[in-house]
Amino acid sequence: MRYKLTIAYDGSNFHGWQEQCTPDGNPPRTVQQVVRTTCQQVLGQPVELVGASRTDTGVHALGQVAHLDAETSIPIERMAMAITSRLPDDVEVRHVEPAPPDFDAISGAKRKQYRYRIWADAHRPLQLRHCVYHCWVPIDVRKMNDAAMRLVGEHDFAGFANAGHGRTTTVRTIYDCHIEDVPHSPEVHIVVQGNGFLYNMVRIIAGTLIEVARGHKHSKYIDELLAEPDRQQSGPTMPPQGLVLEWIRY
Amino acid sequence: MRYKLTIAYDGSNFHGWQEQCTPDGNPPRTVQQVVRTTCQQVLGQPVELVGASRTDTGVHALGQVAHLDAETSIPIERMAMAITSRLPDDVEVRHVEPAPPDFDAISGAKRKQYRYRIWADAHRPLQLRHCVYHCWVPIDVRKMNDAAMRLVGEHDFAGFANAGHGRTTTVRTIYDCHIEDVPHSPEVHIVVQGNGFLYNMVRIIAGTLIEVARGHKHSKYIDELLAEPDRQQSGPTMPPQGLVLEWIRY
Repeated sequence: MRYKLTIAYDGSNFHGWQEQCTPDGNPPRTVQQVVRTTCQQVLGQPVELVGASRTDTGVHALGQVAHLDAETSIPIERMAMAITSRLPDDVEVRHVEPAPPDFDAISGAKRKQYRYRIWADAHRPLQLRHCVYHCWVPIDVRKMNDAAMRLVGEHDFAGFANAGHGRTTTVRTIYDCHIEDVPHSPEVHIVVQGNGFLYNMVRIIAGTLIEVARGHKHSKYIDELLAEPDRQQSGPTMPPQGLVLEWIRY
Repeated sequence: MRYKLTIAYDGSNFHGWQEQCTPDGNPPRTVQQVVRTTCQQVLGQPVELVGASRTDTGVHALGQVAHLDAETSIPIERMAMAITSRLPDDVEVRHVEPAPPDFDAISGAKRKQYRYRIWADAHRPLQLRHCVYHCWVPIDVRKMNDAAMRLVGEHDFAGFANAGHGRTTTVRTIYDCHIEDVPHSPEVHIVVQGNGFLYNMVRIIAGTLIEVARGHKHSKYIDELLAEPDRQQSGPTMPPQGLVLEWIRY
């Protein structure tokens, strides 16, 4: 039986999603390793856990999706709770549902949404410092939104990817990209929805939009980067802690 | 010259406010020690830093107040920034203002407001786990608010204090106590404003109100605890991470 799991985590104390083997036999703490071994304990059998997105160290998730195969008598409605109750407090299996045998968390993903949280204030984020990027200089949200909307559509995003993505094509479709000004808070969010993302793509989009928001670049700069992709010209890769994988649709 | 400082911090990685001397010469990391030594570096002289509230390990502050005496040529409007820029990222001096020579952060405090944050949801708080108490069983906010309002007034709060408060009188005045249901969030906050607080008083108030909110006690229970103070009868001391010292008025 194949199961689809929806997993949420605070990435602060994880070395990303992907399980790693190290020669010294002391692998770093990763989400995949922690959730997989807990699933094995609960299900009483070895399992392979295939996750949709390989989030980096420090990146968070509300709706990571993974699949696994297992035979168990645990009722489906109790399975998420049974696994979560044995997980450490920075990760949670939010839902478990039965999936068709050919369901694949990676190749079946049709649409993903990420959010990049910016703390736009002279004061420090303090309690939120592991969940936001602190931008203490003024930013122009209207200009930033104008720039964000220019990313929507099917484009070659090679200018928004770091080396190491290992993908044959760098063409992706962005369905939505806009800025949310959070009420009663100094937070400004970049929301990006697309059919797939290249290595560090959302963090580079964030860095590029912040260049515009700070007045260093005009929003037409986005059009140029899409027309003539050049990683040397786009903005910096923003730090991981502001990034959240919100959901994945199949 | 005497200065009044307003200080904010994430208490997660501090052993509370108060500086401690240990025989081994390795004192724990406290807010008072970190801020005091940074003030000394910036001001170029030894200083004593007197804080209004001795917050416990894990308790947070948005508006802790402290005073210090120093002679300096640093302009007053630059002083907060000069100190904060040398502080670690979990603490911030938000304001520095000149104070009369007889200003005393402890004895001059007229009114303080605390907030206790409850995450009332079956799902885990994850990123917010160091800032909230996770209550996964249902709570009745209306009953909780009815119980909270009964605390308002001048009462003997001995039933809401743990041993070690070392105060001669346990009579305090609560000006306001109410529950805030945070919109678009599973958070429920207990807001308490008073002229002073006994040892662990807000955390015991929170524990007692949660007893009512969970249906274990009727809200009249509060009246009984105020009429006949008995620490054995009041609720548990809730964990520190949900507590924030919001502000202090003089």
